[in-house]
Amino acid sequence: MLELLTSETPNGWKVAILLEELEVPYKVTPISLTNRVQKEDWYVALNPNGRIPTLIDHDAGVDHDAGDFAIFESGAILIYLAEKFGRFMPSDVAGRSRVIQWVMWQMSGLGPMMGQATVFNRYFEDKLPKVIDRYVRESQRLFGVMDTHLAAHEYLAGDYSIADIACFPWVRGHDWAQVPMEGFAHLQRWFDAIAARPAVQRGLLVPEPPKPEEMAEKTVAQGKNILA
Amino acid sequence: MLELLTSETPNGWKVAILLEELEVPYKVTPISLTNRVQKEDWYVALNPNGRIPTLIDHDAGVDHDAGDFAIFESGAILIYLAEKFGRFMPSDVAGRSRVIQWVMWQMSGLGPMMGQATVFNRYFEDKLPKVIDRYVRESQRLFGVMDTHLAAHEYLAGDYSIADIACFPWVRGHDWAQVPMEGFAHLQRWFDAIAARPAVQRGLLVPEPPKPEEMAEKTVAQGKNILA
Repeated sequence: MLELLTSETPNGWKVAILLEELEVPYKVTPISLTNRVQKEDWYVALNPNGRIPTLIDHDAGVDHDAGDFAIFESGAILIYLAEKFGRFMPSDVAGRSRVIQWVMWQMSGLGPMMGQATVFNRYFEDKLPKVIDRYVRESQRLFGVMDTHLAAHEYLAGDYSIADIACFPWVRGHDWAQVPMEGFAHLQRWFDAIAARPAVQRGLLVPEPPKPEEMAEKTVAQGKNILA
Repeated sequence: MLELLTSETPNGWKVAILLEELEVPYKVTPISLTNRVQKEDWYVALNPNGRIPTLIDHDAGVDHDAGDFAIFESGAILIYLAEKFGRFMPSDVAGRSRVIQWVMWQMSGLGPMMGQATVFNRYFEDKLPKVIDRYVRESQRLFGVMDTHLAAHEYLAGDYSIADIACFPWVRGHDWAQVPMEGFAHLQRWFDAIAARPAVQRGLLVPEPPKPEEMAEKTVAQGKNILA
């Protein structure tokens, strides 16, 4: 059995979307960022960085003493699952590398920069226009990199792959991060195609979204966690 | 033949160090950040993100029309080379994944956060103590993650691997980023062990360091590029 320890953030949705695309059974263990569960000892023993998501493969059979294998970092989880099931990443050297290149680009660029835009637009105690401008411009530069590439390619790296799955939830968060997406027609075409996939829609509901009356508390907690 | 297009930055040194460890022949093509060569059309055709490093494998034999295969994102280059030569990353599922997890952690966390600390300590036009504090504290949290892990492990993921090679140049940059490293004894022990490796010392000289009289100009140019 696969177990996904997660919360409702872009990095969590990446893995949930892939699991839904794979149509394999998995257990969801919601991690409350409000209660800082991701910093508790039992969780940090699984994920030394104290962040979500974590995947536990209870049937990995890769360790000597147990079948359990815990994986941290969403990009590493995507690669692990794609290889385990032989899907959403080619097996030839070049095709595989192209997918990994774009997953790395998301992990090192799109995710961190959209994350900083979110922090300074939404959570930081001071409003700092020059800092906001830095991160909005850098995020838009990255949108432009995708847009240029997608002008000549249907997906980021060959067929629909974990590269697209990695980037999608971050692009989807552009409103929340207050990074305008106007003027990126190819990016929008790609986004709409992925958003229409039933597995993607199911993945975005994992874990179960907070009820409206819980939203304000969750938002404040998420902000505090990003800043902590 | 392998060709490394690079400049004297942590992400460039990662790949140079691995190539030196592998003891394989490679050609170095220095990319002048001062002259913004990384934004020129010919370079962006190889690296859609317009950043260094890029690796070209002129003997990949993986494309239909040519043996050349260009790879962007330093983390993806490390994985490509480790797999091509079967070194510095285990081939078993768990060992491989553990290495990829820590490479992802460097790409998504240590690199971007140390990068932001550098920007706001060195390059940003305004001095913003709260912003500097945010990035110094987050970088030190990440140092702490490594330190805790290295208290119980000689290297980040099994034997010395591309995970260590990925993190080393960023930890080495702590003085430049103005992120104090005091109090992380296990991290220091790991750092000293890696710094003593002859291949690491050779890699840090690739490309050839700027002459003293060129340093000021290079520093200003790097700052402008980070902000652009």
